[in-house]
Amino acid sequence: MLIRPKAGILDPQGEAVKASLATLGFSVTDARVGRLVDLEVEADDAASARAEVERMCAELLANPLIESFEIVADRP
Amino acid sequence: MLIRPKAGILDPQGEAVKASLATLGFSVTDARVGRLVDLEVEADDAASARAEVERMCAELLANPLIESFEIVADRP
Repeated sequence: MLIRPKAGILDPQGEAVKASLATLGFSVTDARVGRLVDLEVEADDAASARAEVERMCAELLANPLIESFEIVADRP
Repeated sequence: MLIRPKAGILDPQGEAVKASLATLGFSVTDARVGRLVDLEVEADDAASARAEVERMCAELLANPLIESFEIVADRP
């Protein structure tokens, strides 16, 4: 699952990455830093696995006030 | 770009996520936590953009000793 700071939310890590890249001579228009969580779940089918992971995101892994999340299934 | 701890490398964040999910009643077989960096670069074509981002990864964003990275192009 991919967790990103929502648009408009200040992202100090992203700013730091952008500044460091500039110091090294790279030019990027924008940089945002989020988290990546790889989860292995056992479920009867893809839909129930996705629903379960969605609940995990909402209850623990992402902060819905400032972050958005996207679930990417490896074996759909 | 997606940055993950390499297989076999201890991932305390992943262990913490797994334990916390178990406390909440979810069961996951495995959890690994990595980083997600969204970069916006200007380049003449997709190949040169990818090469540029690959150099950024190797020089700053990922630690090649313990992390592997994967570049996913949004507009290939």
